[in-house]
Amino acid sequence: MTTHKPSTAAKQEEPSVGIVSPNQVRLFQPPHVLKLANGAALGPITIQYETYGRLNAKKDNAILLCHALSGDAHAAGRHAPEDPAPGWWDTAVGPGKALDTDEYFILCANVLGGCKGSTGASSTDPATGRPYGLSFPIVTIGDMVECQKALVDHLGIPKLLAVVGGSMGGMQALEWAVRFPEKIQAAIPVATTYRLSAQGIAFNAVGREAIFADPNWKRGDYYGGEAPASGLAIARMIGHITYLSDKSMHEKFGRELRHREEYAYNFETEFQVESYLRHQGQKFIQRFDANSYLYITKAMDYFDMTDNFPSLRASLKRTRAKFLLLAFSSDWLFPPQEMRDIAGALRANGADVTYLEIKSDYGHDAFLLETEEVTRAMKPFLRYLHRGGHGAHRGAAEGGVL
Amino acid sequence: MTTHKPSTAAKQEEPSVGIVSPNQVRLFQPPHVLKLANGAALGPITIQYETYGRLNAKKDNAILLCHALSGDAHAAGRHAPEDPAPGWWDTAVGPGKALDTDEYFILCANVLGGCKGSTGASSTDPATGRPYGLSFPIVTIGDMVECQKALVDHLGIPKLLAVVGGSMGGMQALEWAVRFPEKIQAAIPVATTYRLSAQGIAFNAVGREAIFADPNWKRGDYYGGEAPASGLAIARMIGHITYLSDKSMHEKFGRELRHREEYAYNFETEFQVESYLRHQGQKFIQRFDANSYLYITKAMDYFDMTDNFPSLRASLKRTRAKFLLLAFSSDWLFPPQEMRDIAGALRANGADVTYLEIKSDYGHDAFLLETEEVTRAMKPFLRYLHRGGHGAHRGAAEGGVL
Repeated sequence: MTTHKPSTAAKQEEPSVGIVSPNQVRLFQPPHVLKLANGAALGPITIQYETYGRLNAKKDNAILLCHALSGDAHAAGRHAPEDPAPGWWDTAVGPGKALDTDEYFILCANVLGGCKGSTGASSTDPATGRPYGLSFPIVTIGDMVECQKALVDHLGIPKLLAVVGGSMGGMQALEWAVRFPEKIQAAIPVATTYRLSAQGIAFNAVGREAIFADPNWKRGDYYGGEAPASGLAIARMIGHITYLSDKSMHEKFGRELRHREEYAYNFETEFQVESYLRHQGQKFIQRFDANSYLYITKAMDYFDMTDNFPSLRASLKRTRAKFLLLAFSSDWLFPPQEMRDIAGALRANGADVTYLEIKSDYGHDAFLLETEEVTRAMKPFLRYLHRGGHGAHRGAAEGGVL
Repeated sequence: MTTHKPSTAAKQEEPSVGIVSPNQVRLFQPPHVLKLANGAALGPITIQYETYGRLNAKKDNAILLCHALSGDAHAAGRHAPEDPAPGWWDTAVGPGKALDTDEYFILCANVLGGCKGSTGASSTDPATGRPYGLSFPIVTIGDMVECQKALVDHLGIPKLLAVVGGSMGGMQALEWAVRFPEKIQAAIPVATTYRLSAQGIAFNAVGREAIFADPNWKRGDYYGGEAPASGLAIARMIGHITYLSDKSMHEKFGRELRHREEYAYNFETEFQVESYLRHQGQKFIQRFDANSYLYITKAMDYFDMTDNFPSLRASLKRTRAKFLLLAFSSDWLFPPQEMRDIAGALRANGADVTYLEIKSDYGHDAFLLETEEVTRAMKPFLRYLHRGGHGAHRGAAEGGVL
């Protein structure tokens, strides 16, 4: 069953893709189920996605955008005029923007294991008629990419112009580059890594521990009852600390108190930074499923391109893609050094690589906030790609620091 | 009531203070109660402490050692020969060590608000005969220092040769320097800061949130029942991530799996780093009180020497102490820059300051692990002090990087 509808609508006053509608497609219908990395078979799999802009006649202007841990298919525009906020990367997806919808057909899908329309732990298991919960299989970044590939095939796109993504989305972009080398012209991994670090695993593990410890979690079998909201909120709070830099936290909050001049000398939320984190936690539990948080962080933990390869360079040998790698100077969750390692390995393989390290104080969050710099890097790269890879792009930006 | 016993005993084979006994003293007996920073009055207050080495006849060789968040009065030696581990800074306290017990009389006390013998939330409130729980008043670093000062007076020590401490212990050393300028000759703040950063507050706040969320916490009224162990374990796991550097985590654990070669594809503790953190959490709940964790992290949050002063420099004007400041290059919880700021402010005031930035990959934990470098910095400084501040110490080490 496919419910693909064109989802780009009339533009608003400010550049925007306007009102959009999500689509769903059912893939991997039995017996054509997906063989997962862990050996299990899964199907059918519903994938929710949105598209912005138009696929051209040659079908060579499609860009797949991959979301991060807490993202979803709704990257740009609004579902209804009264929506308080647009999609998660509206600053970069739209007419004239970094991913210019006047030029390109942008596709964004909720990941396998997610909770925003794609099949995940909160979905109904057709075998039981009840939510999967922890009987949902562990999925990997590779499994997510397999679903995206099936979606791209379903849409009749022979080859993607580019796969773009930040953070976990960047892992997917890298995975595409090696898993389907003939299906993409370019990859734009942003603020990401080729393998999650011990510190990254550690933060994810503590977040999961907070969910496990929530008595409402009930080994994942909480659907229909109270959700493990306090555990999920704590996991999100931990995450948020890692998305900001020490400096941006200092500049944004410092040691400012909330609603008062003097210390309260009690355990109420008192400092602005506490209030911010608490608010982020509370907002998140309204929109995210705790089990999905477990599955998606686990997929990130398992991500290591060098598994079964003697080196990063060897693991990248298969790719034929051109690369634009964007790192941010103050990102301590996915430090620029790891992006430099990728660039170095690709170059050693003779790949067409542009690595840019953008100076920013925003930490990991910079990939969502440094719109101007990201746009300045992406637009010429995409134009160069779309012209077939000819022109002056590389020389101008090669290895530079914006 | 005083139970002061000399606690240094016979030396063992390797340099050690040997078998030691803790002491307790009851201070601030009503009506001479302690007026706390929050305005409340508290007393009596029991302080647990240990001493190593001998106070000389001139009583000018006493060094106060201040412990960090999870430390206690037991800094060196063993309470019994069968103790599996010695005190928390045995590598630095003993005969011939950084704090040389052949030369100095070392004093270490559990902080006010702690749970290792000093009065805190788990102590019995004399007014009710029941544990204080959350009726225990919020205490500050200044309040802790007031208790240490009362202990020093009780022991008849007119002036401390030095106050030494790492992390929260360093906050106490700084507080001593400005609160009791005539009572100390020198301060040795290690891996610390003059005010907890927004990021530091954030990590503490999430740890507390995990304790609050534990159903066994019962607004602090859990004594006699099940302790909020899972919340406290999560708080400790978060803490441990901040004590290590990304690099040390990578070198120590990398992406190594526990007991296996292949991914398990389940939610069991699988990576070595997860196992390490979990183990740290589980060990901690055996020895620490969750309410104490709340109170002590809150005291750290409130620490800001510049409160009520126009500048750091102004806040440090009162001190008469000589300073040895030790920072560690990879410490991201208490970054060297903040120690440099202290050194700069002190120098601008004309103080006698030595600032050393020790190159280390161990992160914040370096202050407990880089014994050789710490010893190399402290021993000559203390010798110089003990000689009355004359000699070549400053010239040799000033502003250097070991």
